[in-house]
Amino acid sequence: MSGETNRQWRLARRPVGDIGEGDLEFAQSPAPQAGPGQVRVRTLILSMDPTNRIWMSDAKQYMPPVKVGDVMRGVTLGVVDQSNADGYAPGDLVSGMWGWQDYATVDVAKMPLAKLPADRTLPLPGYVALVGGVGMTAYFGLLDIGRPQPGETLVVSAAAGAVGSLVGQIGKIKGCRVIGIAGSAEKCRWITEELGFDGAINYRDEDVGAALDRLAPDGIDIDFENVGGPIMGEIFARLRLNARIALCGLISQYNAEGPVQGPANFEQVLMQRATIKGFIILDYAARFPEAMHDLIAWHAAGKIKYQTDIVQGLENAAATVKKLFEGGNTGKLMVQVADLPD
Amino acid sequence: MSGETNRQWRLARRPVGDIGEGDLEFAQSPAPQAGPGQVRVRTLILSMDPTNRIWMSDAKQYMPPVKVGDVMRGVTLGVVDQSNADGYAPGDLVSGMWGWQDYATVDVAKMPLAKLPADRTLPLPGYVALVGGVGMTAYFGLLDIGRPQPGETLVVSAAAGAVGSLVGQIGKIKGCRVIGIAGSAEKCRWITEELGFDGAINYRDEDVGAALDRLAPDGIDIDFENVGGPIMGEIFARLRLNARIALCGLISQYNAEGPVQGPANFEQVLMQRATIKGFIILDYAARFPEAMHDLIAWHAAGKIKYQTDIVQGLENAAATVKKLFEGGNTGKLMVQVADLPD
Repeated sequence: MSGETNRQWRLARRPVGDIGEGDLEFAQSPAPQAGPGQVRVRTLILSMDPTNRIWMSDAKQYMPPVKVGDVMRGVTLGVVDQSNADGYAPGDLVSGMWGWQDYATVDVAKMPLAKLPADRTLPLPGYVALVGGVGMTAYFGLLDIGRPQPGETLVVSAAAGAVGSLVGQIGKIKGCRVIGIAGSAEKCRWITEELGFDGAINYRDEDVGAALDRLAPDGIDIDFENVGGPIMGEIFARLRLNARIALCGLISQYNAEGPVQGPANFEQVLMQRATIKGFIILDYAARFPEAMHDLIAWHAAGKIKYQTDIVQGLENAAATVKKLFEGGNTGKLMVQVADLPD
Repeated sequence: MSGETNRQWRLARRPVGDIGEGDLEFAQSPAPQAGPGQVRVRTLILSMDPTNRIWMSDAKQYMPPVKVGDVMRGVTLGVVDQSNADGYAPGDLVSGMWGWQDYATVDVAKMPLAKLPADRTLPLPGYVALVGGVGMTAYFGLLDIGRPQPGETLVVSAAAGAVGSLVGQIGKIKGCRVIGIAGSAEKCRWITEELGFDGAINYRDEDVGAALDRLAPDGIDIDFENVGGPIMGEIFARLRLNARIALCGLISQYNAEGPVQGPANFEQVLMQRATIKGFIILDYAARFPEAMHDLIAWHAAGKIKYQTDIVQGLENAAATVKKLFEGGNTGKLMVQVADLPD
């Protein structure tokens, strides 16, 4: 059980603007051994999420920043390979946040690991792309904050992304007219033709305001906001009375090097008596089973699809995470770290 | 009953930036006569409110803009002097929105007028400054959106204004630490020494961010936002987890001539999982009696004070409304149009 090498991505310095060469360093050390009350997990899949960039900065944020020199924080799925803790046995598949490395020891009394169901019905990447944090975020952000009603108009930014693509499909299940904003013709085709969105806007080619006027002529009831910046300003300009903005992410500004200009047309939040609510999914942890139940049922019924974008090899994580900020992925981006069990 | 002259302020053209000479014109015509189902009201007090400026513009807003050529819209208090409607008799004191004029006829089936209580306990200006729209705004914005808890920190902008001064006092009743932001040393003295605010910031003389760091070192739970602009950005930078922003007004930008820059530090709304809710008081009409009851009881118990700034003469309304945007008033600004009954 000893002698394994642990490859780790560590934060070498805080990025300025885009994540640069040398901000993360790839190092090797002997794998740790499970101590009393601990399990050791071996990483199978590492989720790549926009919030990774937030954690690299020392700006005021919702969790402590990753310290320079520490292993990069990340959402992970893996297998228990040593256990000194009740309730966990070697071979158990678990999800957690043990970071960008092959092995980690976890004191499960302090940080419980979620076990995947024994009778799992999805391939492993589905537990990252459908019922992981991504699915929880889409589900609670849209249903709890957006409160969609049949016939309402929902706009989703980063609509071909992991969260946005689920949000739009849940919006359709709830009877909304769904408009997605994405960054390529192919992404727009995918969300309309394959996922059933009512309309799509390619923000790289189209005037977003004019396209919203065309596709949502009566205005916008719900904005599931992943992006921020000028696109959010165009949405604010077209809010309907009592609109809801589920503020999930502001990816357009995570790499900013200086102060960021605030959203244009903010006065419409007042005029339309809109509600903006920032959220992170940890706030809903107690209700995760409800969401998992619905998402799996919808998937089984063919009402919801997910797509994965899987890059092989932990060594490619630092290059891969950058795709999120360049619009390079469609569906859930992840790194496969080791061979997956059946 | 006929022969009276009706003086009216009409919107002559839409202001560009500050309200300018000639944007409103003062005209005279014969007073109208009450038709079937109508009452005629004679104006006693005209309330001067920041939202008057919104109504003068043709920007997208929460009510239709005043049309050029029409009588300026405004909140009014007056006396019925002709009645052809059941339930209203000459001499009844009523409040409504019949605008900047001496006389108006109102079809009460379409627009009921609120009658002042027969056993009124406040002088008439108190029905504008304490239990009128101003008091309703302070009460529901703070209690329903702000949801103050004992020990929380509440920041109020335009704190010596009609709404802000009530908000801070209600915040104290609810056990909050209350910091007011106002535009002069005298206003700061008034809100701390006479109204019991815990701290005050003179935004014209002080660095607002540094002052907030000093007076609210643990951050801000509730922002009752009347002003917008850079001051709101400084508040956003210091939000605590699960902060609430009752978005009541954005007076700093009502006179803007072009697009307005959005609030700085907007990302903290996400990071702190804050809620922003725009509101107007008409949304709470069904609950006005509850607010009136509490406000009158608090006032009678000496827990809440209000201050009035009363300018004499309808002819001075156009010059008077500008004081709101210049920081020229402390307490509720109004125009007395005719002699008041006892």
